[in-house]
Amino acid sequence: MKTIDLNCDMGEGFGAWKMGDDALLLDYVTSANIACGFHAGDPGTIHRTVKLALDKGVAVGAHPSLPDLQGFGRRRMNVSAAEVYDMVLYQIGALAGFTTACGGKLAHVKPHGALYNMAAKDGKLAQAIARAVRDFDAGLVLFGLAGSELIHAGAQAGLKIANEVFADRSYQADGSLTPRAQPDAIIHDVDAAITRVRRMVDEGRVRSQQGGDIPVQPDTLCIHGDEPNAVEFAKRIRQALDADGVRVAAIAV
Amino acid sequence: MKTIDLNCDMGEGFGAWKMGDDALLLDYVTSANIACGFHAGDPGTIHRTVKLALDKGVAVGAHPSLPDLQGFGRRRMNVSAAEVYDMVLYQIGALAGFTTACGGKLAHVKPHGALYNMAAKDGKLAQAIARAVRDFDAGLVLFGLAGSELIHAGAQAGLKIANEVFADRSYQADGSLTPRAQPDAIIHDVDAAITRVRRMVDEGRVRSQQGGDIPVQPDTLCIHGDEPNAVEFAKRIRQALDADGVRVAAIAV
Amino acid sequence: MKTIDLNCDMGEGFGAWKMGDDALLLDYVTSANIACGFHAGDPGTIHRTVKLALDKGVAVGAHPSLPDLQGFGRRRMNVSAAEVYDMVLYQIGALAGFTTACGGKLAHVKPHGALYNMAAKDGKLAQAIARAVRDFDAGLVLFGLAGSELIHAGAQAGLKIANEVFADRSYQADGSLTPRAQPDAIIHDVDAAITRVRRMVDEGRVRSQQGGDIPVQPDTLCIHGDEPNAVEFAKRIRQALDADGVRVAAIAV
Amino acid sequence: MKTIDLNCDMGEGFGAWKMGDDALLLDYVTSANIACGFHAGDPGTIHRTVKLALDKGVAVGAHPSLPDLQGFGRRRMNVSAAEVYDMVLYQIGALAGFTTACGGKLAHVKPHGALYNMAAKDGKLAQAIARAVRDFDAGLVLFGLAGSELIHAGAQAGLKIANEVFADRSYQADGSLTPRAQPDAIIHDVDAAITRVRRMVDEGRVRSQQGGDIPVQPDTLCIHGDEPNAVEFAKRIRQALDADGVRVAAIAV
Repeated sequence: MKTIDLNCDMGEGFGAWKMGDDALLLDYVTSANIACGFHAGDPGTIHRTVKLALDKGVAVGAHPSLPDLQGFGRRRMNVSAAEVYDMVLYQIGALAGFTTACGGKLAHVKPHGALYNMAAKDGKLAQAIARAVRDFDAGLVLFGLAGSELIHAGAQAGLKIANEVFADRSYQADGSLTPRAQPDAIIHDVDAAITRVRRMVDEGRVRSQQGGDIPVQPDTLCIHGDEPNAVEFAKRIRQALDADGVRVAAIAV
Repeated sequence: MKTIDLNCDMGEGFGAWKMGDDALLLDYVTSANIACGFHAGDPGTIHRTVKLALDKGVAVGAHPSLPDLQGFGRRRMNVSAAEVYDMVLYQIGALAGFTTACGGKLAHVKPHGALYNMAAKDGKLAQAIARAVRDFDAGLVLFGLAGSELIHAGAQAGLKIANEVFADRSYQADGSLTPRAQPDAIIHDVDAAITRVRRMVDEGRVRSQQGGDIPVQPDTLCIHGDEPNAVEFAKRIRQALDADGVRVAAIAV
Repeated sequence: MKTIDLNCDMGEGFGAWKMGDDALLLDYVTSANIACGFHAGDPGTIHRTVKLALDKGVAVGAHPSLPDLQGFGRRRMNVSAAEVYDMVLYQIGALAGFTTACGGKLAHVKPHGALYNMAAKDGKLAQAIARAVRDFDAGLVLFGLAGSELIHAGAQAGLKIANEVFADRSYQADGSLTPRAQPDAIIHDVDAAITRVRRMVDEGRVRSQQGGDIPVQPDTLCIHGDEPNAVEFAKRIRQALDADGVRVAAIAV
Repeated sequence: MKTIDLNCDMGEGFGAWKMGDDALLLDYVTSANIACGFHAGDPGTIHRTVKLALDKGVAVGAHPSLPDLQGFGRRRMNVSAAEVYDMVLYQIGALAGFTTACGGKLAHVKPHGALYNMAAKDGKLAQAIARAVRDFDAGLVLFGLAGSELIHAGAQAGLKIANEVFADRSYQADGSLTPRAQPDAIIHDVDAAITRVRRMVDEGRVRSQQGGDIPVQPDTLCIHGDEPNAVEFAKRIRQALDADGVRVAAIAV
């Protein structure tokens, strides 16, 4: 039986500002990547989101970022591997404080935004992240772009890793995501997205923008929570996977 | 045999800015309260300071604060008990990430600056702090002003507590510290400070500014690391206590 | 002919986070108080909001705050008069940079949230704000709670002042606003609010929660932009004032 | 008669943290570049530094940065030209608030750290900075690395520009500074630095690390205020220039 995890970034408000409809999305996803304060997520928002996820039986992960509230963690910064190690460790620890206090357990780590993209291609930064995760808790699962440097670094560090695929993003021939600035980067049609997800799950393949197929291992599928139709998107994808008899579940360690 | 802990606030730089001479002070103190990022302490500074303290065998504690880098956590803020719970939990978790990764263990929590003073008198905030500490790890020691609301809240929450006394601050008749804005708030003379410490350790008493004695339980003595003569002060007090046959050691759980 | 200004806080998003529907509200108000970065308002948000207001012919004001993004500037802080002077001057200057670059002119200053409430009662902080405004530009109008210490301090500093009244907040017998935490603090019914506004404009009086009338001088009326029905509220009040033959216009210097 | 300006970065503390000995350095330099809050410089520090510089008759400039307190503005960030325009305008405005309130006038703008280096090579970012300066006040002088993109952009925008040279940094054959990470990037010997400055002033040339001479136009010479021997360095260079009969003065508009 095929298995896949559905993950979504959550807790991405900050103080008085809200983002996404976490409560509704938690009915469809199996892993929640919760912002840790550097791109979003003040302590109160973190607490509410961790509790909400645990109450719904969704696996809780840390979603660490570059320190950039103004830019929502989406602007690349020229940080050293040592700086990345320290900032990731800080944020994982902070998030884990809430899972512990809520009687739960941290399950995974998925870097956010620019840090995620940098770690997909830069081996040194990828290793720094993997070491921070392992040094905090070698039982955590590390999420990264399928087949990327982060996945390799996680495996080398002895971590369980989760190859992440995207339903609503198009791919380049090298397996990277089409940058958002380009046309056709985003797949807005839910049916088209579902068709792609089914092929990734069934065949381990996705069509690239250049026309050829590329192999992907779909351990976990990213649902974007901040899109206008995010809840509808999540619901439809979950229903399609359930209908296909695919088991939707968090990554077991 | 009498026993006392010597504690000092540390890791209070931020990025390019330094404060205090942590490496030297660690030769004389037995507990280090390490800033957690809200009033001082970026992740790199935290990492270095935790490692330094562990390497010297000094007990590592979290030193959480109100979120106020500009004011170094010294400005009271009108925060709710829920906000205090969440900000303390966040900071303890973040600090503990580094003790874990360095192969050590978090030993205690001491609130910083305005949060420390607010928790000394406001029972609700004191309880919020005590609950955050207990919900993270019931084996942590909670440091608070000797005899204050924070001490009571810690005891009620089932935590081991450490009554903190000050060598270089004068006391009011009600056991509170003379506010820094007043003359005679600070005791600059090391010999006078040592005489006071000896009496606190021997007799459990300190003379108040109003003239009468007040009882204090000196579980841990605060050394201020940011004063110009901090290292000399720490060294002289440590030598005096050693010479008196007082056992200087971190609070055992 | 009676005249009143309608003002609204704007530009209170931050980076990726939005708040309020500024573009729609600008059709009904005559003064925009624009967040300056300390409780909301990154430089990009400020730029867009200043341009939008100037394009619609709405007077642009600075809306300085305590430094508290997490708390949206709503938490009182124990700041000195000198700190308040400096933080207000910094924020006015920053905002004025954008009005200048957009070919406009800064018209007024209205403190935000906790700073507004503190300055209503604390004469020293009120004077610090008034001096910062005057030292930057003695031609600016200072907005404050009608009859408050801030109004007195502005007048004493030689500034033109604008007494602010509220359509959707109830008053206490001493002229202060009922704290938000209390029931009946907010008037949700638009018709009831309009009735109150009409009486303030016609008679210079408003009924307090204790039952008696209190005198108010309605130079400017605050429209809350972050309430769910803010646009409808603003539109209805504007229509009622227009229908009554009240002139709705920004405060002329 | 030859003329040169001596400039130094100042006001680079933040809250409780200090950096550099601004008061002493102001006796030797003629232009002060004052941090604006994004990499250093809280409002209180800005106020004190602006007043100090004006009292000593030193020209006051804004020293805007990328938003990065943790990294002291030294980490490159992937920011758009629009973001750079807005962040520079915000910071210039904030700084100018203090010069205005102190009865002085803003004289120049020099970008800080990573923003300075990015603007030296990236024409689009350089133009964004030049436009922000011009849109705020076309009478301001723009400081940039001698011969860099920022100098070209400033001239194109119709600004008076100041080519900046360095006494204590070595140059590459293309006129860029040797990156700090490389050996021989910094010239620690004061006499060697003075010899280089004299040649730049007399001949408009400096020897590159590759051996050949490169032409430089020394409008303003940077003194680093955060080096251990900064005051001695500044004093010696100022004395040498005075002894040579070089006129040391701020850039006149």
